[in-house]
Amino acid sequence: MSDPATRFPASEFRNRVDALQAGLQASDTDALLLTSPADIFYVTGFLTRFWESPARPWFVIVPARSAPIAVIPSIGLELMSKCWIKDIRTWDAPFPGDDGVTLLADTLRSVIPENGRLGIPMGAETHVRMPLADFQKVVALLTPRRVVDATETLQRVREIKSDAEIERIRATCRSADLAFGQIADIAAAGMPMEQVFRDFQIALLAAGADWVSYVAGGAGRGGYSDVISPAPRRKLAPGDLLMLDTGAVRGGYFCDFDRNFSIGRADDACRRAYDALFQATETVLQDLRPGNRACDVHRMLSDGLKDAGATPGGGRLGHGLGITLTEWPSFIPADQTELREGMVLTIEPSVEISPGRFMVHEENIVLRENGPELLSRRAATELPVLV
Amino acid sequence: MSDPATRFPASEFRNRVDALQAGLQASDTDALLLTSPADIFYVTGFLTRFWESPARPWFVIVPARSAPIAVIPSIGLELMSKCWIKDIRTWDAPFPGDDGVTLLADTLRSVIPENGRLGIPMGAETHVRMPLADFQKVVALLTPRRVVDATETLQRVREIKSDAEIERIRATCRSADLAFGQIADIAAAGMPMEQVFRDFQIALLAAGADWVSYVAGGAGRGGYSDVISPAPRRKLAPGDLLMLDTGAVRGGYFCDFDRNFSIGRADDACRRAYDALFQATETVLQDLRPGNRACDVHRMLSDGLKDAGATPGGGRLGHGLGITLTEWPSFIPADQTELREGMVLTIEPSVEISPGRFMVHEENIVLRENGPELLSRRAATELPVLV
Repeated sequence: MSDPATRFPASEFRNRVDALQAGLQASDTDALLLTSPADIFYVTGFLTRFWESPARPWFVIVPARSAPIAVIPSIGLELMSKCWIKDIRTWDAPFPGDDGVTLLADTLRSVIPENGRLGIPMGAETHVRMPLADFQKVVALLTPRRVVDATETLQRVREIKSDAEIERIRATCRSADLAFGQIADIAAAGMPMEQVFRDFQIALLAAGADWVSYVAGGAGRGGYSDVISPAPRRKLAPGDLLMLDTGAVRGGYFCDFDRNFSIGRADDACRRAYDALFQATETVLQDLRPGNRACDVHRMLSDGLKDAGATPGGGRLGHGLGITLTEWPSFIPADQTELREGMVLTIEPSVEISPGRFMVHEENIVLRENGPELLSRRAATELPVLV
Repeated sequence: MSDPATRFPASEFRNRVDALQAGLQASDTDALLLTSPADIFYVTGFLTRFWESPARPWFVIVPARSAPIAVIPSIGLELMSKCWIKDIRTWDAPFPGDDGVTLLADTLRSVIPENGRLGIPMGAETHVRMPLADFQKVVALLTPRRVVDATETLQRVREIKSDAEIERIRATCRSADLAFGQIADIAAAGMPMEQVFRDFQIALLAAGADWVSYVAGGAGRGGYSDVISPAPRRKLAPGDLLMLDTGAVRGGYFCDFDRNFSIGRADDACRRAYDALFQATETVLQDLRPGNRACDVHRMLSDGLKDAGATPGGGRLGHGLGITLTEWPSFIPADQTELREGMVLTIEPSVEISPGRFMVHEENIVLRENGPELLSRRAATELPVLV
């Protein structure tokens, strides 16, 4: 992607900040403090893999009624200056003893009145990316200002993707589609899984991914037992069910979908499981509408699988998608989040083929007024065979 | 790497836990709570790219006098069971309302007496990877037990690498050496930087990297202005100084070094800067010894650059390396950390060639009794030219 930090127009970010500020004002919160790579990218466009270094904290403040302020290590000044943010305050990190604490606290005090409130995302799927001891110092320096949970404010905004965001996720999905299209050159009986994983990542890069933050997979006779492991040395064998799952990234946006393949002829149980997963997904693609809740998707998929005579796997059956590999909501019985137009979601049913042996099927969609629009190319109607 | 979760023998992890427990006992701390990918991998060998999903928190507890306990989402049970940890407690995450909080608090209460202390890394280069609101609930449930900072306990152990760890980092460096060896096929005048970044990642994978968590770089006439940006679309041009920097990963361990290249003939200023960086690094490679402090390396490099008539760049001039792209200590004037045998470090001097134009040089070493041993293949003695 060209100049990812500046590729969205400033209006994209202004719209986001407007929406966040409306939420802050509605919840009587004076400013929002962001510390995570995803949240800071969302507000500023600041995109770097330098987050891999845990050495330095980074901060962005969104006041309820004025422009965002970046409080960052000076090593990031050049890149942040290319973003739309005008107020950038830096310190030379790492700086033992006061690693941005005073600068952050001073900045927060300047935008929050003494009787005011600072919002921080502190709920599900968040964490505060700075040393806890420094966070506690900042909170103490803000006294008597109060610190409140701003998870709702942030997530209700971030979960609705703009057209520009949807096009980015679509582009990432396209790269993964192309890489999956190369699978016959990547995976075959006798091939070590570690080589399959490596070649699949190469195919994703060759297909336009900027980088590949996530590849997982599994393989086993009659199903796989684990879907989060890195590659084992084990060689693929005839009769294996192979799954590859990827979160590639383009322009800061993820895809997250998998594909299943049979190494040689599949047994009947695998083919039946694949059909059940395909049909259950098809039902959601047809019937899901804005206004449904996250738990409704879980029910639709579970019912569809049971109707097909399959045993649904445990865990969640899909989730949000965007700047991180997974976002809220979760398709589980307990999640009542209302699904709205513009949400990008993964539909991810799983079947337990036999005790401890699974198959997981996954597609990426954007929810439109009239229902889901696929962002991933729909999986094959029958379990593909690799010879 | 084959079966990365189990590739180290259990004795490797037992040694680590023994060292951590000695530190806990010496600091009168009853248990250590770990939440980060690096810390959990360090104690258990649990290696997965699933950390890319922020949806679920993961916990490992190291009691001061008994075996470690994993408190994790059930999706990780299969993989954690392949590690050496025997006591694995799971819940079905995500679980709104009690996402591991009760299970974690109950487990901590069972290993910490009421008048006892829980250690958590909360200092520099750490963060608590769980929702802050849930962390506060856990702390409340632990009352009257006290929560104390365990950063020292953890970092003094993790910073000394075992022979097995050093061999893993060496293997990762070798992959990067091989990929840099391909540079003539990757970078040339007219090549867009985004393509260079993509092809360099492909070369790293082809050279044995399991995955590529970090690639950054810069290019510009007479030096580059920024070293943390993702790839711009800009094409390389004759006279450009090109730098590529990588944190590839093998078996969970990073390399972190860069290489500089001139696109066509370099100007005198670039060649002089390169020579100064090479010589300053050479001095450290010759003179550094256990017992020196982190600040000494900064001084050695700065003095060496000044002696060569060069202007040292700002920021730190190297750091620790291992399970994350960067680890403590930092080669800055304020860091008094004693350098000890077995530390893996990056030597990373930079020169400001002209205002806002830099060159950064980086090598990876392990500090031995008699001085540094290179893990990266030493950079070329003269600035390499790509035509």
